[in-house]
Amino acid sequence: MRVQRPKGTVDILPEASGSWEKVEATARNFFKRANYREMRTPSFENYEVFSRSSGESSDVVEKEMYDFNDKGGRHIALRPEGTAGVVRAYVENKLYGPDVVKPFNVYYIDNTFRYERPQAGRQREFHQIGVESFGSASPLADVETIMMGHDLLAELGVKNYELHINTLGNAKVRQDYHDALVNYFTPLKDQLSEDSQRRLGMNPLRILDSKAEEDKKFLPDAPKIVDYLDDESKKNFETITNMLDQLGINYVMDDDLVRGLDYYTGIIFEFMVEDKNLWESATTILGGGRYDHLVQEFDGPETPAVGFGIGEERLMLVLKEQNPDLFKDEGIDFFITNIGEGTEIKTVEIARSLRKQGFKTQYDVDQKKLKQQFRKADRVHAKYVITLGAKELENGTLNIKRLADGKTIDLSLEDLNDMQSVMEKLKD
Amino acid sequence: MRVQRPKGTVDILPEASGSWEKVEATARNFFKRANYREMRTPSFENYEVFSRSSGESSDVVEKEMYDFNDKGGRHIALRPEGTAGVVRAYVENKLYGPDVVKPFNVYYIDNTFRYERPQAGRQREFHQIGVESFGSASPLADVETIMMGHDLLAELGVKNYELHINTLGNAKVRQDYHDALVNYFTPLKDQLSEDSQRRLGMNPLRILDSKAEEDKKFLPDAPKIVDYLDDESKKNFETITNMLDQLGINYVMDDDLVRGLDYYTGIIFEFMVEDKNLWESATTILGGGRYDHLVQEFDGPETPAVGFGIGEERLMLVLKEQNPDLFKDEGIDFFITNIGEGTEIKTVEIARSLRKQGFKTQYDVDQKKLKQQFRKADRVHAKYVITLGAKELENGTLNIKRLADGKTIDLSLEDLNDMQSVMEKLKD
Repeated sequence: MRVQRPKGTVDILPEASGSWEKVEATARNFFKRANYREMRTPSFENYEVFSRSSGESSDVVEKEMYDFNDKGGRHIALRPEGTAGVVRAYVENKLYGPDVVKPFNVYYIDNTFRYERPQAGRQREFHQIGVESFGSASPLADVETIMMGHDLLAELGVKNYELHINTLGNAKVRQDYHDALVNYFTPLKDQLSEDSQRRLGMNPLRILDSKAEEDKKFLPDAPKIVDYLDDESKKNFETITNMLDQLGINYVMDDDLVRGLDYYTGIIFEFMVEDKNLWESATTILGGGRYDHLVQEFDGPETPAVGFGIGEERLMLVLKEQNPDLFKDEGIDFFITNIGEGTEIKTVEIARSLRKQGFKTQYDVDQKKLKQQFRKADRVHAKYVITLGAKELENGTLNIKRLADGKTIDLSLEDLNDMQSVMEKLKD
Repeated sequence: MRVQRPKGTVDILPEASGSWEKVEATARNFFKRANYREMRTPSFENYEVFSRSSGESSDVVEKEMYDFNDKGGRHIALRPEGTAGVVRAYVENKLYGPDVVKPFNVYYIDNTFRYERPQAGRQREFHQIGVESFGSASPLADVETIMMGHDLLAELGVKNYELHINTLGNAKVRQDYHDALVNYFTPLKDQLSEDSQRRLGMNPLRILDSKAEEDKKFLPDAPKIVDYLDDESKKNFETITNMLDQLGINYVMDDDLVRGLDYYTGIIFEFMVEDKNLWESATTILGGGRYDHLVQEFDGPETPAVGFGIGEERLMLVLKEQNPDLFKDEGIDFFITNIGEGTEIKTVEIARSLRKQGFKTQYDVDQKKLKQQFRKADRVHAKYVITLGAKELENGTLNIKRLADGKTIDLSLEDLNDMQSVMEKLKD
């Protein structure tokens, strides 16, 4: 019997992993420059952490949670997204206290899990990159979050993304809008999909997200939140959009944008990419918004918060189309070939020294014939080949050859201790 | 009800995460220089992957596996260690094929899981860093693996580690030794611990690992593998130790070293740290060895292999003692304070530009009073404070102050587009 990876999972092999690393290193570096620091929460949480935050009627909780009972009988779930665990940690570690600078800005790079029917672009284990900012209700906090999403995608080399924004207003607005949706959909209930019939009682907003054919025809005439916004919410939204204008960040007002989770309040946004090579319609690669009540849901103090999350798998698909340089094999700097009595250990020593000096260096642990060593140097895309023979070892000399043009220079063994200078010589 | 993190898990908060990141970045960089590339396998596998590789009688499989039945009735386990998944992926993706350069060298940085009674230093979710090299039976491959462990620990700043080595010989040696252990322990069976009584039938080697008082007194007189080595295994072991000698890598021959998993063959090794501030006795932070049959266990072709794994939690404990620099808060480069009408957006623009130029930059999204902004600059350990007022904005000027010594210089707004030059000026 051959053992296979579990359904809905993938292996990221070395030929691909380099691009994932580069993307994550770019994101880390980007977040650090904005003084967002990393938060690492467990891969699994008590089930309530997610059911409470995402909303009992969300698709995630209803259908997609990767949950199980552990050996101690606890109801555990592998995290479906990154925010809930960070909020749980924020409260449990009392990071709302006065010792912690506010806003408390963090990022995460998480593996995340959903138990759903595997299909294109949907895996049981996938990855999310995100940021959260706790403690500021200022529109500038919203603007900074959106700007960071914008600038990060640009820095990664994503092209043609479109920012969609909407606002869910304050608590009263959401209640009024909720009632309007119930009034609108209730007479149509029998014609709605089964999912939406259930949503009507729990969270009618979710019906607007429906992809079911039965529901779609009723969506264009459904009430729009913009008609229910009070002056305060309108003004707040305008302040944000004005600042985006001044910063030259383009956006589209999108009444249909509601996001798939219960916890959002205030502004919500999505960065969408249209790429016919990848998807039939515009697809969200980054989404977020304000969630001012979630910390309280976890029994923390009233705490305004805003954040975003990126689906890393989708991001990688886009980058493969739009920034192919990220996916190139960089090869190595040096391959050391050796032949003859006593050259083995010297070869290891040279490799060790060059690696210590910061160069990617390999040699042939199998000590095959010189021809095969050269072939291996080629296959690992070495830029230079250093050759060490028994006679050279005796004389303390060797030579180095640039594979691109065959240029060769002779070296003493001592020269290798300062390889940077040798590289300078090879430049001429 | 307050929701808490699951038993045996931890949150790595921003004050600590920076040191984890640095350690992992150092490891990645180190591996890349040796042309080891990353392999990412799923966090969970079919249970058989681990039971087959670790051995049914290993503690991991017997007592510590974090396994459960998924919603589809599959027996799934969160990975207890990194090697088995990599081997599974190596076989499933046919990486033994001629298109892939051999040895096939990979590293991983994995979160790993064990379901056991949480205690000091034992968590249900923890982390491992490791390397695997497939396809070379050469002693140089063993030496390179050991050397990499040695040099990585040195580069990370671990001090006083001691390398213990032993060999399990070839298949015949292990069988002979197995028989000798059975002969030795069988008359003592009634006096052994319950665990060891069971091990006697399955894998008597494991008894040598026992920490049980009942067992300990019988261990010194137990047969030693060194007495069962055949000439070939002895010679191979000598070749390896000779090369370690030539490379100046110190080691201790350790007859008692057996490692906790079934899959090792040939050389095994552990890097141990003695630090009375941390542990009563020497503790392993890196362990590995040769495992020439594991690929075949997964129905792949006969493939020699060698690797090591590092327990990241233990490593971090050691580094906290031995390399405290890693744990220092680096602070940020610039904090931009602003006051007065119209300075808000300019502040964001300056921060955006400085971040783009590579500097860690923050400003006050809450736009509090100047005094509070300065206090925040202090609390986030800013090196410089840039101040922008309404008047300065009008004149296109501002000033920058170095907090360490109060040195201040005036700038034009344009100067900020080339902050590197400004930094040069501040040097004088």
